[in-house]
Amino acid sequence: MPTILTGDRPTGPLHLGHYFGTLANRVRLQREGADLFVLVADYQVLTDRDVADRLTEHAEGLVADYLAAGIDPGAVTIFRHSAVPALNQLMLPFLSLVSVAELGRNPTVKEEIGASGQASVSGLMFTYPVHQAADILFCKADLVPVGKDQLPHQEITRTIARRFNERYGPVFTVPEALLSDTPHLLGLDGRAKMSKSRGNAIALSATPDETARLVRGARTDADRHITYEPETRPEVSNLVRIAALCQGRDPHAIAAEIGNGGAARLKQVVIESVNEFLRPIRARRAELDRGLLRRVLDKGNERANAVADRTLAEVRAAMA
Amino acid sequence: MPTILTGDRPTGPLHLGHYFGTLANRVRLQREGADLFVLVADYQVLTDRDVADRLTEHAEGLVADYLAAGIDPGAVTIFRHSAVPALNQLMLPFLSLVSVAELGRNPTVKEEIGASGQASVSGLMFTYPVHQAADILFCKADLVPVGKDQLPHQEITRTIARRFNERYGPVFTVPEALLSDTPHLLGLDGRAKMSKSRGNAIALSATPDETARLVRGARTDADRHITYEPETRPEVSNLVRIAALCQGRDPHAIAAEIGNGGAARLKQVVIESVNEFLRPIRARRAELDRGLLRRVLDKGNERANAVADRTLAEVRAAMA
Repeated sequence: MPTILTGDRPTGPLHLGHYFGTLANRVRLQREGADLFVLVADYQVLTDRDVADRLTEHAEGLVADYLAAGIDPGAVTIFRHSAVPALNQLMLPFLSLVSVAELGRNPTVKEEIGASGQASVSGLMFTYPVHQAADILFCKADLVPVGKDQLPHQEITRTIARRFNERYGPVFTVPEALLSDTPHLLGLDGRAKMSKSRGNAIALSATPDETARLVRGARTDADRHITYEPETRPEVSNLVRIAALCQGRDPHAIAAEIGNGGAARLKQVVIESVNEFLRPIRARRAELDRGLLRRVLDKGNERANAVADRTLAEVRAAMA
Repeated sequence: MPTILTGDRPTGPLHLGHYFGTLANRVRLQREGADLFVLVADYQVLTDRDVADRLTEHAEGLVADYLAAGIDPGAVTIFRHSAVPALNQLMLPFLSLVSVAELGRNPTVKEEIGASGQASVSGLMFTYPVHQAADILFCKADLVPVGKDQLPHQEITRTIARRFNERYGPVFTVPEALLSDTPHLLGLDGRAKMSKSRGNAIALSATPDETARLVRGARTDADRHITYEPETRPEVSNLVRIAALCQGRDPHAIAAEIGNGGAARLKQVVIESVNEFLRPIRARRAELDRGLLRRVLDKGNERANAVADRTLAEVRAAMA
């Protein structure tokens, strides 16, 4: 069975967009028997003061979201980046395998330098794809689920693995990208992305009342006849899609059922679908306590450290 | 008493140039009671295959040179960079505190990019001053002995310490550079630098016969009258300087004593001075065995790890 690395930044509660974008996929891969590593990428937020203040709270919140969503802590390794120091030691050989020119071709870096100059790009942003390579390669992941925008980063990881193996001997797996084909959920306000901070997202931890309130406030359009036409009717189609994903059905069928019921009927269907969908997730969450979340992280950190130490020993032996 | 960080790359035996350039200074600082950390900078040679092959041998060789030169392993912490993983974890916050523009102003990087383009500069070379900052700041060094060419690197370390303290609270000491005023020894062939690989250096581990052979092969000039005039007679003056440093006397006095004795007499004086100087160093070396060298490194690695873990805990607390 493949080894798979996934992860999230601990910046706040996960929402439906995360669930259908990646969590559902992880639960499926776990059921299929994959050796799943889930990285709580807390190093990425070290420099964001507002987030750092609540980093442990957020990390434990992520674990709660994972377990509630159906991740089995007995089968999956959930770990915090900051708890695995050996990961960073891979940075040294990895940095030696890529050039400044290659790092500068990173689209995020190019964009930022183009917009605000080199002084606005930190050394951390510049070397970010190499940090990511360390995260992915330390556990010898075969597969990494990524969005399209992450493919250039992923390519640097593959380059580093290949160059290391060529130069020092076969230590690393060259991982494949597992491109997700789930359509992105829009925010309830019609904006391009669900985001907790914009108040346009339904958190997995939302109560039935919060869910109803959020959906009732969602943007729709003036046409009473409900259809699924994402290009021309993005807000209405997004609501239809949410109901369809929650029910595991085709969005066109959902839209046809509502027909001339208008936005009110559509929203009622969405509220019921989401609450029905979140029912088992809420039930699992109700059984979690902070002690359990900590134990899950402790155990995951321990295994990640053991794996990282083993890989590092192989790296040293190969380079010696 | 100040905490001081010094170190060497484990690229081969230390020679007289190292002794008078830095080792003598370390022995003096140790006697004065400084808390001395000596870094065996093995990460710097990870990518140099020829050296990596003999890295452990070279690391132990360095320790042998240190102890022979008078470093007291009971008072000084000698450690290998690769044995202190927590050091690398400092890289993440530190990289976030400097910009790509600042890293690009490093003279070594500028020179290399100017000569061969960005593709020739590795991510490791580019981020090198930040690695150095982690080495220096983890033990909260007050003083760092440096050559003039290292001052720009040193300045990045000071910038990182200052910015960290401003942003997160006072964790790091902002270290001062301790500029060495020892004149550089030339190679015995008159080239700008003593270097083992050029065969123009007298290793601290050289036997009396090797020493005599090397000095007899040294370059001089046609003027029988020996003087100390470094600008106009570099090779002869370099030999005079070696004898003077070994005897702890003024080079002009040495030259005056030799007078019209010519190169043969000069070389005889140098051979005797160096062998006399190396006598106690050779005696101490004869008492060393590999088991001791390993124990010194083990103990040093252990202390460096404890210090690094403590600093890292402070960093996490400050950033949390």
